[in-house]
Parts: sequence; C-alpha cells; structure tokens
Amino acid sequence: MATIKQVASKAGVSVSTVSRYITHKGYVSAEAEVKIKKAIQDLNYSPNISAQSLKSKKSNLVGLLLPDISNPFFPMLAKGVEEFLREKGYQLILGNVNEDREIIKSYLQFLVQSNAAGVITTVDFKEEFPEFDLPAVTVDRVGKKSEFGVFADNSQGGFLAAKAVVEAGAQHIAVVRGPLTTDNTNERFSSSITYLNQADVNYQVFQSMSYDFSEIQAEAEELLKGKERFDTIILPSDVHAVAYMQEIHRLNKHIPEDIQLIGYDDILMSKYVSPALSTIHQPAYEMGHEAAQLIYKLANNQSIDQKQIKLKVFYVERGSTRKIKENENE
Amino acid sequence: MATIKQVASKAGVSVSTVSRYITHKGYVSAEAEVKIKKAIQDLNYSPNISAQSLKSKKSNLVGLLLPDISNPFFPMLAKGVEEFLREKGYQLILGNVNEDREIIKSYLQFLVQSNAAGVITTVDFKEEFPEFDLPAVTVDRVGKKSEFGVFADNSQGGFLAAKAVVEAGAQHIAVVRGPLTTDNTNERFSSSITYLNQADVNYQVFQSMSYDFSEIQAEAEELLKGKERFDTIILPSDVHAVAYMQEIHRLNKHIPEDIQLIGYDDILMSKYVSPALSTIHQPAYEMGHEAAQLIYKLANNQSIDQKQIKLKVFYVERGSTRKIKENENE
Repeated sequence: MATIKQVASKAGVSVSTVSRYITHKGYVSAEAEVKIKKAIQDLNYSPNISAQSLKSKKSNLVGLLLPDISNPFFPMLAKGVEEFLREKGYQLILGNVNEDREIIKSYLQFLVQSNAAGVITTVDFKEEFPEFDLPAVTVDRVGKKSEFGVFADNSQGGFLAAKAVVEAGAQHIAVVRGPLTTDNTNERFSSSITYLNQADVNYQVFQSMSYDFSEIQAEAEELLKGKERFDTIILPSDVHAVAYMQEIHRLNKHIPEDIQLIGYDDILMSKYVSPALSTIHQPAYEMGHEAAQLIYKLANNQSIDQKQIKLKVFYVERGSTRKIKENENE
Repeated sequence: MATIKQVASKAGVSVSTVSRYITHKGYVSAEAEVKIKKAIQDLNYSPNISAQSLKSKKSNLVGLLLPDISNPFFPMLAKGVEEFLREKGYQLILGNVNEDREIIKSYLQFLVQSNAAGVITTVDFKEEFPEFDLPAVTVDRVGKKSEFGVFADNSQGGFLAAKAVVEAGAQHIAVVRGPLTTDNTNERFSSSITYLNQADVNYQVFQSMSYDFSEIQAEAEELLKGKERFDTIILPSDVHAVAYMQEIHRLNKHIPEDIQLIGYDDILMSKYVSPALSTIHQPAYEMGHEAAQLIYKLANNQSIDQKQIKLKVFYVERGSTRKIKENENE
C-alpha cells in the first residue's frame, strides 16, 4: 500500500502539505492540490485512518453499550443506530455490558483512548464516571440527570396500559414492576398506578428482578400460586408477558378469559405468540436512529434543538386482553 | 490528559525511548524503564491507541458483518462473539450489511485502514474482494471455498429434519428451500431430499426468496392456496416456520393435525409460539464464540488445529410435529 511519503514525493510537495490536503486543515495551493489529487489516484493511496485520527483528534467510532443484545428489544434499536451511522461514514462498536460497571468502564476507557465520536448507552454514566469526557446520549432508560437522551413516552405508556385493561373489565389486577434500576419502567409503573387509583380498581404490586425468561417464569409461578386470584396482569415488558403466558398455559388457565395480560415494547415475538400479545408499542428502531443522529450532531458541533427527544408510544390491541367489558362478581 | 512528550520530559529521556517502552519494541535501558514507569504513573498517562496502532500496525478491532441483526438468529451469535473478544481486550465493530456488496466493501475498507485484527462475516468475500488483506472467519453460511469457518452440521440437520417428519407419518411433503445465495440452507436442503428419496415419500420443492416475515407469509399464502394438499412442511429456518404458522392459523387449519411443520435454528421465539415449534437446534452463541476465538488465534499467530469447525445440531421435538405415526389414505 502507498504511503503519504510516496504521495508527497510523486506530487513534489512536502508530507505536511499532503497531510493538510487530506485533513482539510490549513492552506494548500490550487496547484499543489491538483498534483496531490493526481498522485493519490496514480498510487491508489488511501489515507491511514489511525494517522488521521491522531491529527483530527476524533475517530469515526461510536460506542453502543447495551445491557444484552439477545434481549429481543435491543436488536431493532441497534439496527437503527447502525443504519444512521453507516450512512454518515461512522462505525459502531457494540458492547454487551450486562449493567456491569467494570465492563462499562472498560468500554468507556477504550472509547476515550480511541478518540471516539461518542457513546450511546442505556445508563447515564456521567455521575459515576465523570473522568470520561465523551459525547454521550442515553437511550431508552433515560434518567432524570441525563443531558442528552432519546426515549419513548413512558408516562403515557403506563397510562395507556392501565386504561386498556380497566376498560376491558379488569377487577383485580397484579401490577408487576420492572427491575428497580431502570427509570423507564419506574415511570411506566407510577403512571399505571396513578390511573388505577383514580379508577378505583383493586390492585396489588409485585416486583420483578430480571429480564431473563426462565427467571421471570419462576417469578410468575410464585405469583400465580399465591392465594390471590387475579383476573389481569400488567407486565413491564413483552419478555415478561411471554414468560407469564407460558406459566399460565402450564396451569391450564385461559388467556384472556381467566387472566388477561398486557405487555410493553411490541417486540417481534408479540405478534406470533398465542394469543397474540396486547402491548404498548415502543419505536425501538427510531429510538436508535434518533440517538445516533444526536451523537452525530454533538460530534460535529451542530446546533441541537432538543436535548431530550421523547418519542410517541401507542396501544396495540391483540388477543391477550378482553374485548368486551365484563362485569363479574367475585 | 498527559502527552507522551510530557512523560519523556518528566522521565528525562527522549520521546522515542518512551515510545519503544510503550510498544515493547527496541532497546530501553533498565534505568530508563524505571524512570518512564514512574513518570507514566505520576502523570496518569494513558497511551493514545491511534498512536499505538500506527506503530504496531494492528488494532484490537474485529468486524462482525451480519446480514441483519434484527433476524432473531443473529443476536445470540453476536453475543458469543462480543463476550469472547471482550475478555481478550478486543472490540467489536458491528455492521448490518443486508448482503449488499457495496456496504460489505466499505466495511472491509474501513477495517483494513484501521489495521483491524480481523473480520467475521457470513459471506466469504476473499474471491470477490481479494484486495482486502485481513484475517477472516466465515460463520454460519460457510461456503466451500472459505479457508477459516465455523458452522453447524447442516448436512446432519437436513437429515434429522426429514427423518423427524417421516417418522411422524408424513405422506405428502412441501420442502421449502432457503434463499439460494446461502450454502448452509442448500446443504440442509440436499440432505433432506436425499433422505426423502430413500424413504420413498411423496414431496414437492418450493423456493423461498426471503428471510422477512411478511414476505415469507405471502409465499406461504401462495403455496397453501395451490391445488396440492400437503400434510407436512419442512422449512429452512424458524423465521420461515413462524410465518407459515401464521398463515396456517389464518386459514383455520390445525397444527400439527392438518399440517405438521418443522423449522430450523431453534431461535428464542420457537418455544413461545403456539404450538411450540419442532426444530433443529443450532448453537448460535457457540458459533459466535468459536469464530471470535479463531480470529483471535489468527491475529496473534497462534497455531490452529482446525481451520473449519463444525458444531453439532440436534432435533428438538415440540408441538408442531405429530407424535404418533399415522397411516392416512389419501
């Protein structure tokens, strides 16, 4: 492969002139430009990116740190990030961080040392790791302190979920709260509870500790073998809802006749389980796409109208909620 | 952040001595070593990775180019790659390439220019793009010409799928062939056909052109409205099988009573559709993990026992295939 020295020699100019030409920084005469352009073509020279990033102090790498790429919510988000970045000539570093602080820290370290353009994470790390100076956008699980974030309207989502089951005749509801570390599920939860209090419906709260199918199914077993008989369960994610479905089927109960369920996210699988899952649709692809755009603007010092981008959610009625308001006496 | 110049000045040695120390290349006196080490600690200096990769000519980046991260087979594979690489201090560049040659080319270009340690792809690019000199491992869709590859035993998988439905009493089978571009599905297909010919069962072949749910469902509609009445369908992937299930449900036919189905892959969703999908299990996570290990060995000039790693598959019997051999007269 040709070197910058060979280009300079062939063009009859200095290496630093070629460097100025390549990085678009500083003066290059029109005459020199023509010669360098021709030398680059003749030698089929492609500038070494590491050399470039040394000069510009910014690489085109963007980190995407996700809790778990195998959680069915995240692949579409990752796709949205990758497609935006690719079109802009950026590359995506994918980290599967399991919410492990050490793993997050080591990725941030790498990104800073590589002069990365920025990082997209589901956790705001600025407070815990202030030493990493890197443009950052929080996505999905945006906390109150995140400066730049892209998230769906969790408050509206929680409201819509509670409203949907109450309108379908819910009398005795189990509300399963998502793992406490995530602000987004907390917000949905509070919003559902506010609605249920106003609607004066009987409910009870359960805490989930996991996003793992089999662990959730164990939690479902626990909940369903209790003394209380629920006719409705509000779940914090579709993964939760699908795991509960499995357990309800195992107990030979019918959905939605015996128990109705509502999930959250609208992952691909929701359409294909049986009955199909009623849920709150979150725009995962758009979330990733918008987060990538925000990082791009930050990295290129473009003006930013909105530091926090809130995307719309909507209720998707499928087969796991009741169709007609029923008035059963317990 | 401290610079290499500051380190050199504090240690009272030249910049090139510090550079030799950092990159472990060339002579550094024991006395200088002690001074540099102390200066690095005092200044909390961390070497710029771009500068390092210029010197060592190898970065710790590994590309993973997948057709579509939102295809449910690939997230587990990506997880396997990421976990292995992370433990070794490598980083993963994720590309969603949609089998688009231009996108693949631009990623390869980037990886070569970044002195990447290697690339893991589902397509062997060496013949089409010989100009990109980069350690490469083909994964899953390994072709005959791939030098380094990790794949599941497709021939055994195709055999097991055909055997399972024949033993469950299949009399009139539709065999859906996967998109022609992929060697892995071709191999499964041939192996299924060989078994069916030996078993002397009536079958007909159909060609699928897509891995997209809605496009496959349109293909299913076409196949099922034809004159032929099939009692069994062998599908090239679980995504195909789930799409066919939807269409069969829509026609108010029963699975497996009217039509039995077998998929391929054992994606997460297979357990949760209804009836649960009988399928051939492929070890997606292990495939990614093994591919990452192979790239690691290649990048570090370690000895390689096996250039082609074939992983085991097995049949998972669930509810979409019949349990008892039935003898119906057509």
